[in-house]
Amino acid sequence: MTEVKKDKTTIVLFSGDLDKAIAAYIIANGAAAYDHEVTIFHTFWGLNTLRKDEQVPVKKGMLEKMFGKMMPRGTNKLGLSKMHMAGMGPKMIKKVMKKHNVQSLPDLVEMAQEQGVNLVACTMTMDLLGLQKEELLDDIDYAGVAAYLGEANEGKVNLFI
Amino acid sequence: MTEVKKDKTTIVLFSGDLDKAIAAYIIANGAAAYDHEVTIFHTFWGLNTLRKDEQVPVKKGMLEKMFGKMMPRGTNKLGLSKMHMAGMGPKMIKKVMKKHNVQSLPDLVEMAQEQGVNLVACTMTMDLLGLQKEELLDDIDYAGVAAYLGEANEGKVNLFI
Amino acid sequence: MTEVKKDKTTIVLFSGDLDKAIAAYIIANGAAAYDHEVTIFHTFWGLNTLRKDEQVPVKKGMLEKMFGKMMPRGTNKLGLSKMHMAGMGPKMIKKVMKKHNVQSLPDLVEMAQEQGVNLVACTMTMDLLGLQKEELLDDIDYAGVAAYLGEANEGKVNLFI
Repeated sequence: MTEVKKDKTTIVLFSGDLDKAIAAYIIANGAAAYDHEVTIFHTFWGLNTLRKDEQVPVKKGMLEKMFGKMMPRGTNKLGLSKMHMAGMGPKMIKKVMKKHNVQSLPDLVEMAQEQGVNLVACTMTMDLLGLQKEELLDDIDYAGVAAYLGEANEGKVNLFI
Repeated sequence: MTEVKKDKTTIVLFSGDLDKAIAAYIIANGAAAYDHEVTIFHTFWGLNTLRKDEQVPVKKGMLEKMFGKMMPRGTNKLGLSKMHMAGMGPKMIKKVMKKHNVQSLPDLVEMAQEQGVNLVACTMTMDLLGLQKEELLDDIDYAGVAAYLGEANEGKVNLFI
Repeated sequence: MTEVKKDKTTIVLFSGDLDKAIAAYIIANGAAAYDHEVTIFHTFWGLNTLRKDEQVPVKKGMLEKMFGKMMPRGTNKLGLSKMHMAGMGPKMIKKVMKKHNVQSLPDLVEMAQEQGVNLVACTMTMDLLGLQKEELLDDIDYAGVAAYLGEANEGKVNLFI
């Protein structure tokens, strides 16, 4: 989207698991530090990473309301893919991350935005899950699978997480 | 397999989750619409997407019979990776997909076949899980990891889902 | 790391599931047989594949001890991503793998080492989970995300599993 000759890295973030989102953002921030042009395409449960912490009043249909209620709102609410242990796992991970000076997911997302990582919300799954732009972080992009494929086709590293 | 100069996209579909299979087929159909040469290599639980809906009488060993019974038969029986909720999640997703005019998984698979997406069943995991050709969709290919790697090595976008 | 002109394949093994680890190592060994230069970057739960079977006495903090206890030690203890069924699933998979002459995961790891596949443990997640070098297999490498990205940027096939 910006310069022409930078190496490109793309990540489809499909998962809504805290640990996978952390891995995705660490890779993305690393690639951005390497001066790659980086795109994270958030689809399905990966959209939860982009949700604002607070509830945003929007009008929704019944099904969309149910999905909205059941899905975690924002980076602080995500669970782990393994050892979730009724919420104890995420707390432990957050604790050890702090202890070892690893950035938390909200910090990783903020850093990604500062480094110019292209955060994209998949419009088709926003529709499906009934998520509206007001509910997601500011300064992100909106696109469909065609735009993702355009980027990925020029990417040197393309991951599905 | 066909022309020489087309861009290639390959997907390993390992997962047997409905949502992941939908994501895989949406990406595959998008890439095919872009005139990429697309291969989906179905391995492990991803083979369930290729199973026929109806039971097909074949001779199997005991272990293979057990796997066959426990695994979902075809695209209509797959569960979700998140919020499965005793089967309610898949129903909700199917409902919202219909409401928003997103194709169902069986339709996505059919469209992939019409667009010439190369649907491949991993012969090694067919052996392991005791699946036989009669139980899988018609007009698909059969190959092993070597054939997959040959394709992927020329692919511009290679994903593991 | 060795010759200059070989095709490169990289795999991020994030998952601690037996079936996914098997898939990763089958792809890696296939690529190595094709004379690719192959790197498996083990991060998060993927590190469990590299753990030694036996308990290794090391000094740890409380949180790290808890993670160490809860996580499976080595390839023989991993569960399945689907149909774990209180441990019955892994047993069945191992049985059918043996029956069909597919190598077990420990054998696949050993073969990878013999073929010169570059097994890398992610130092950041080792820190997080409190894993120490003494607890992991011999003759592996240690690196961070920057080294992974350096490899992947030259890779033709890059997968996240």
